[in-house]
Amino acid sequence: MEKKEMIYEGKAKKVYSTDEDDKLVVEYKDDATAFDGQKKGQITDKGEMNAQISTIFFELLEEKGIPTHFIEKLNETDILVKKLDIILVEVVMRNIAAGSLAERIGLEEGTALPQPVLEFYYKDDELGDPMINRYHIYAEELATAEELDEISELAFEINDILVEFLAEKNIDLVDFKLEFGVGTDGKIYLGDEISPDTCRFWDSESGKKLDKDRFRRDLGEVEGAYQEIIKRLTE
Amino acid sequence: MEKKEMIYEGKAKKVYSTDEDDKLVVEYKDDATAFDGQKKGQITDKGEMNAQISTIFFELLEEKGIPTHFIEKLNETDILVKKLDIILVEVVMRNIAAGSLAERIGLEEGTALPQPVLEFYYKDDELGDPMINRYHIYAEELATAEELDEISELAFEINDILVEFLAEKNIDLVDFKLEFGVGTDGKIYLGDEISPDTCRFWDSESGKKLDKDRFRRDLGEVEGAYQEIIKRLTE
Ligand SMILES: Nc1ncnc2c1ncn2[C@@H]1O[C@H](COP(=O)(O)OP(=O)(O)O)[C@@H](O)[C@H]1O
Ligand SMILES: Nc1ncnc2c1ncn2[C@@H]1O[C@H](COP(=O)(O)OP(=O)(O)O)[C@@H](O)[C@H]1O
Ligand SMILES: [Mg+2]
Ligand SMILES: [Mg+2]
Repeated sequence: MEKKEMIYEGKAKKVYSTDEDDKLVVEYKDDATAFDGQKKGQITDKGEMNAQISTIFFELLEEKGIPTHFIEKLNETDILVKKLDIILVEVVMRNIAAGSLAERIGLEEGTALPQPVLEFYYKDDELGDPMINRYHIYAEELATAEELDEISELAFEINDILVEFLAEKNIDLVDFKLEFGVGTDGKIYLGDEISPDTCRFWDSESGKKLDKDRFRRDLGEVEGAYQEIIKRLTE
Repeated sequence: MEKKEMIYEGKAKKVYSTDEDDKLVVEYKDDATAFDGQKKGQITDKGEMNAQISTIFFELLEEKGIPTHFIEKLNETDILVKKLDIILVEVVMRNIAAGSLAERIGLEEGTALPQPVLEFYYKDDELGDPMINRYHIYAEELATAEELDEISELAFEINDILVEFLAEKNIDLVDFKLEFGVGTDGKIYLGDEISPDTCRFWDSESGKKLDKDRFRRDLGEVEGAYQEIIKRLTE
């Protein structure tokens, strides 16, 4: 499958059309951004690393019966996917308090949550991706009640699968962001990526951060963290 | 019923114990605050006016079958209520976009919402009353799923009753905040107050603000707005 035109360039990926109307190629970039794009940088080989990591997670989820957009990895940075009409609601799943949740409800970062926490955010850079609820989603007609129920159920299932898989690799899945969309067949699929850019991964023993927080918070060893994730997922 | 000890002084009301364990007296104050208490002032006769307005709304809701803490108005500023264990989740109902909702999802103030929007906020001054969702409420053990379902259902019912009642008075009910609590009998009741301090009221024709936004936004004629509400509710 060949890339044709670039139809979208986002903060971390480029999206290309292909010869087939219902398939796209997603090319992972080395660019890194944080804080609504206010902080910008590059992480060497991130594109390759995230394409590899996303592939591992999508293959695992497909195997477990989760409908995803993943079709196949084409080369180091490019993944062939089903074309989706992306639902503009980002779903965040959390197992341990960190980042904005810790701030919002006054929990110390690292506090284990008694049960997973699901949050919806409006995928809108201009508004700064605000947290929203079902009723905001209805008001903005971003998704129907049925779609929200389905993506919420999928998000909890995906969380269970990933938590279990990562625990075996000595990684705590602190939180992560998912995007869903509607395929040309009208069904809902998991889209976008699953990588250290969109997840918080902490070493289960030391608590060491192995994700984009090393870039966001200037903790150093950014590339090393992404490499460590690959090492643990592949060995 | 006599006031005994003051057991709590809040931003807008004082709460007193009485001779009976399951009853309290709420005294409405003239003090006004805004923006998490950063802005402070007084609104002449607000205590009296809000006690009167709250009484009208609570009597209406009781008549319509909503369980409320209201027992009787004792004098100009004091209301006798059932003692509740207040659920630390503020419920905001919205019919028209204004304030933080307009900002959050990028709607112009005044946009009619296609259906009522319900929001939960954590009643916590130190955290700045952040918007939260069900899962945050479970994580913080602020309420159970059953309690949330019940207060949500009540909030939509209360909205319908108040919207209809106020429409007859030429007032648009833009949005309002409710607090619920558990009585000594284990049942859920509507608590706190319903007044221009906790609601946005707009004149249906001119759109003129008849509520605490006149204080928050320094629009002048603050007392006059509260008086106008009383006039419309009582004539
Ligand atoms: N299967 C898909 N079909 C269509 N669009 C997709 C698919 N998967 C992801 N996308 C979208 O492609 C873009 C990926 O690029 P990214 O750099 O993450 O963009 P953004 O800066 O908008 O987050 C996102 O807007 C994402 O929603
Ligand atoms: N029926 C009730 N039983 C117990 N507490 C109540 C009842 N109704 C309201 N309250 C509480 O009494 C206080 C009212 O005073 P207020 O000035 O509004 O306080 P605050 O500054 O905490 O909002 C609030 O904390 C409110 O939750
Ligand atoms: Mg993205
Ligand atoms: Mg109050």
